[in-house]
Amino acid sequence: MTDAKIPYSLNSKAVAEATRFWLQKRGVTILEIAELVMLLQKKYYPNLTMEECIHNVEMVLSKREVQNAVLTGIQLDVLAEEGKLFTPLQDMIENDEGLYGVDEILAFSIVNVYGSIGFTNYGYVDKLKPGVLERLNDKTTGQIHTYLDDIVGAVAAAASSRIAHRKQAEREQELGLPHAPEDVEEAARRSVPENEEPE
Amino acid sequence: MTDAKIPYSLNSKAVAEATRFWLQKRGVTILEIAELVMLLQKKYYPNLTMEECIHNVEMVLSKREVQNAVLTGIQLDVLAEEGKLFTPLQDMIENDEGLYGVDEILAFSIVNVYGSIGFTNYGYVDKLKPGVLERLNDKTTGQIHTYLDDIVGAVAAAASSRIAHRKQAEREQELGLPHAPEDVEEAARRSVPENEEPE
Amino acid sequence: MTDAKIPYSLNSKAVAEATRFWLQKRGVTILEIAELVMLLQKKYYPNLTMEECIHNVEMVLSKREVQNAVLTGIQLDVLAEEGKLFTPLQDMIENDEGLYGVDEILAFSIVNVYGSIGFTNYGYVDKLKPGVLERLNDKTTGQIHTYLDDIVGAVAAAASSRIAHRKQAEREQELGLPHAPEDVEEAARRSVPENEEPE
Amino acid sequence: MTDAKIPYSLNSKAVAEATRFWLQKRGVTILEIAELVMLLQKKYYPNLTMEECIHNVEMVLSKREVQNAVLTGIQLDVLAEEGKLFTPLQDMIENDEGLYGVDEILAFSIVNVYGSIGFTNYGYVDKLKPGVLERLNDKTTGQIHTYLDDIVGAVAAAASSRIAHRKQAEREQELGLPHAPEDVEEAARRSVPENEEPE
Repeated sequence: MTDAKIPYSLNSKAVAEATRFWLQKRGVTILEIAELVMLLQKKYYPNLTMEECIHNVEMVLSKREVQNAVLTGIQLDVLAEEGKLFTPLQDMIENDEGLYGVDEILAFSIVNVYGSIGFTNYGYVDKLKPGVLERLNDKTTGQIHTYLDDIVGAVAAAASSRIAHRKQAEREQELGLPHAPEDVEEAARRSVPENEEPE
Repeated sequence: MTDAKIPYSLNSKAVAEATRFWLQKRGVTILEIAELVMLLQKKYYPNLTMEECIHNVEMVLSKREVQNAVLTGIQLDVLAEEGKLFTPLQDMIENDEGLYGVDEILAFSIVNVYGSIGFTNYGYVDKLKPGVLERLNDKTTGQIHTYLDDIVGAVAAAASSRIAHRKQAEREQELGLPHAPEDVEEAARRSVPENEEPE
Repeated sequence: MTDAKIPYSLNSKAVAEATRFWLQKRGVTILEIAELVMLLQKKYYPNLTMEECIHNVEMVLSKREVQNAVLTGIQLDVLAEEGKLFTPLQDMIENDEGLYGVDEILAFSIVNVYGSIGFTNYGYVDKLKPGVLERLNDKTTGQIHTYLDDIVGAVAAAASSRIAHRKQAEREQELGLPHAPEDVEEAARRSVPENEEPE
Repeated sequence: MTDAKIPYSLNSKAVAEATRFWLQKRGVTILEIAELVMLLQKKYYPNLTMEECIHNVEMVLSKREVQNAVLTGIQLDVLAEEGKLFTPLQDMIENDEGLYGVDEILAFSIVNVYGSIGFTNYGYVDKLKPGVLERLNDKTTGQIHTYLDDIVGAVAAAASSRIAHRKQAEREQELGLPHAPEDVEEAARRSVPENEEPE
């Protein structure tokens, strides 16, 4: 894997790209996650667009903490699907054992990226399993998504939290309130040329 | 409060009793929390009784970590109701500000007492606000329950997790499986004379 | 506090300013927190400057999640100092009771803002109590800093995590590696005119 | 792994045994973890015995949440050692990448089992790497313990928290204070015949 002659050096771009690659390979599109976000947020922001939802999912997926959790969780799903884990971990992940909670722990580290206000949204979608989550929970396909279904719900919950923070910033700007520091970061981010945004 | 002549010494019984006193004073009964547990768990355990739900809520409330969170949260609610917090914390707690998430953080420390498997149940009841949670969220009463509504949902979620663990232990005992260590603790606990159980 | 005629509306600037006001009023300077950061990080980054440490502390303090935790913790310290909490919460906070862990829970929500890599740094400074933390832990002053000492350690730990993320981004830029999304955010932030940075 | 004809059913005893098996196979003894506990706690409890430390480590390891984290973490270490993870996860775990924090997240779920008071102890041993932790961090052996070293520190921190809770219960019993509910559980546990304790 690593060539003995090249010393290890973290490549952030490679981590980001692997995250997108593996989500897609496991059958989850950014659009589907954005649809969960819309479901969670449209009641609070009637003018919310799918474009905004997609953008916020992208921003969540650009966070390293999120990438680490996504890659680790999908890796465990894939290995379980191939039957390569040791017993009884294999059995617990393969059967999405209710008393095995490490998948929720990883999901939680994703939700946390935009703070505690996302906890509720995570629990809600994880319980109701709308849209893509229903498909990921179908136990008849032979595929194992014990981690991925929690991860997808967590990304949607984190994106919802991000939207809540941004909408507040927009509201304050419209009211002509002086910039709070977080607005500055947002403003700076918006000034980034489109083609430098994560695609 | 503390008498200068008596050095401080933690009194666990006093902490446990204050927890029950303040829950009751703020209008929440053990029975109402148990009803949330029943709502969350009856679909998984059709034979679950209200007595079991009540017992599991009691056991959650006997945990010190839970007591600390309950007392701290109710204290902040009460002070907000009396207008005694400094600005802008007063405004945020008084108005249950969506971007203020410390109430969720305390709730989360309660859910965690029986592990990550309770995260989902917490988010679900916190979103749907069934039973007592609807009343606690009524903003027209003049009462402030910014912390308490999250706390009550968290206690119900933790009790649900505790039931899931116990039901597994019972299932294994019925199958004649050798005791796992956790069963031993459960068994020991069941051997405690009734009158020593938390009332 | 809130005027009955003006409907509540969150003012982010006021929350950010109150955070700085209360830290200062309770005797903690940004410089002292930055010194903890330097202590934690100089061994990994020998060229790290105090200016960088200060900037990173400022950025941590600009996060709303952090501001909420700082304000809530200091409020509880102040009320305990004034003897205004109910028993036994008053006793536990007044005496920095070892089995009362809500202060650690708030601290943890601060550390988490830049992810799990800060857990270790938090525990380390909280145990050794260097610099400002030693003063905050002096129990002979009559002041109560049960929350504040954990909060200050947590802000320093979060700033350390932020530095670790930024240094990696710098390293990759020097290597001419393509920008990862997080670099874009950093780059955008650096393009903000100086006077729009937090104070 | 699972035989198609036997439907899956969680076997708690098997999970508990696998946890001990894998700790031992990866070169960590209960005694070494107990030595970390002694190091952390002897200053607070001068009469603390190694026997007590061992017992408290055993009780932490009997918790399902802990077993899940231990097994998952060791599995990832073993797979990394065998080079079987996908890039770039393989590189990050193999090289104990500083910006990869999933190991700390799992460790944290272990510490949490006895509440937030253990956070500090975890960070402290994880930073200083005393005893067994120094050996696990030796990068020259070809072995990979990216997860295990954090896990071992977390088990020691959790055991320290458990001791703090028990010592308080003992102190109150000596003072003749009425039983708090947690004492009841402790008392019940002590009445379990020795041979039913986790070996």
